[in-house]
Amino acid sequence: VVLSAKGLETGTLDRQSEILADMAPDAVPYVLSGPSFAVDVAAGRPTAVTLAGDDAGDTSMLAAALAGPSFRPYAADDRIGVEIAGALKNVYALACGAIEGAELGASARSALIARAFAEMARMVSAMGGSASTLTGLAGLGDLTLTCTSVQSRNYQFGMALGRGLSVETIMANGAKLAEGVSTTPVADALARSLDVDAPLIQAVHAVLSGKADIATIVAGLMSRPLKRED
Amino acid sequence: VVLSAKGLETGTLDRQSEILADMAPDAVPYVLSGPSFAVDVAAGRPTAVTLAGDDAGDTSMLAAALAGPSFRPYAADDRIGVEIAGALKNVYALACGAIEGAELGASARSALIARAFAEMARMVSAMGGSASTLTGLAGLGDLTLTCTSVQSRNYQFGMALGRGLSVETIMANGAKLAEGVSTTPVADALARSLDVDAPLIQAVHAVLSGKADIATIVAGLMSRPLKRED
Repeated sequence: VVLSAKGLETGTLDRQSEILADMAPDAVPYVLSGPSFAVDVAAGRPTAVTLAGDDAGDTSMLAAALAGPSFRPYAADDRIGVEIAGALKNVYALACGAIEGAELGASARSALIARAFAEMARMVSAMGGSASTLTGLAGLGDLTLTCTSVQSRNYQFGMALGRGLSVETIMANGAKLAEGVSTTPVADALARSLDVDAPLIQAVHAVLSGKADIATIVAGLMSRPLKRED
Repeated sequence: VVLSAKGLETGTLDRQSEILADMAPDAVPYVLSGPSFAVDVAAGRPTAVTLAGDDAGDTSMLAAALAGPSFRPYAADDRIGVEIAGALKNVYALACGAIEGAELGASARSALIARAFAEMARMVSAMGGSASTLTGLAGLGDLTLTCTSVQSRNYQFGMALGRGLSVETIMANGAKLAEGVSTTPVADALARSLDVDAPLIQAVHAVLSGKADIATIVAGLMSRPLKRED
């Protein structure tokens, strides 16, 4: 079974392949993820994604079977890294959209992407995945796509948050499904259970639950003592 | 001396701090780089950048002196990594702009950013810098800003290339300075001298010198055998 849904299960904190193992214990799980807007794939524009699976030979064979002239899946073995990256990028897209909605500038948005990448690496390492997966298509590739494109539903939702609207108001205005809204509290619980420092996930969670506004969070981030970057 | 110019010297292939060492041998070099459009800095929007210097204490002191409420420099020690990232991002911005100019889609652009990150890491490692610098503000942060923003001069120049215009035509039309145009042949020479595999730099060089067009290069990339990503 090739899993292409993204997210973490509310309550259990399970990844998609853990849900699959519960529902269909005999299924062999593969995870497909990477920068690929449906509209680009459908239009035959060049798209490169990651296909992660446990058996190297089978994964390469499946990648070749799924490949077409414009759709290129690259085989990899770190299912955990690919699944966590796919889930968390939607949380960070909410944050990046909020930066744009609050008119804080493209520079701040890119600083946030660099911080998100570091936080995602801490999460993946704590889950037993490989941080190096994140430099590939399913990590960095998908993060930059989702976090910089108004085509992304999560980014759009974040923009509305950045303009000061509440989740309830945004939903009442007929916003499209933004998976990050469901993923954020689960990601926050996961970070806490793993004892991972995840200030961005926490900040998005606080904004979504109405406990903080963007201006307060940004002011807090900007007034922290200047530590070394390395 | 705090170096904020980006690029590599034609002929010598020198980094900015090597040029400084020639011109002012007694000066202590620091390198300031990161996602920071001048318009954002000037407007007081939140900006976080890297300040790299050899002495940890002095660099932290200088970072604190340069910091303001909205401009946050973070001290680091890898001058080489920061200088190479600052120079090469302009080359990759040309490529990303060309992807947009050729209407190949945001998904392809993000796949290219992931590939650029890996290529930049090979270059930095070969130069004696640290690839881990690239996950920070001066690497990933600045790469995502320059490679996704039409505000970037290099990105704009790339868009014109992607529409099929030659360098001569773009310049004749009054295009603004795009440092990447000068940096690309030097980066290509540097990659060859270090024996680093740098297909993206080579491709940009080929397009700039009129030896290849975008469509041919993309077709070549998409028809390569599917290797494993890891």
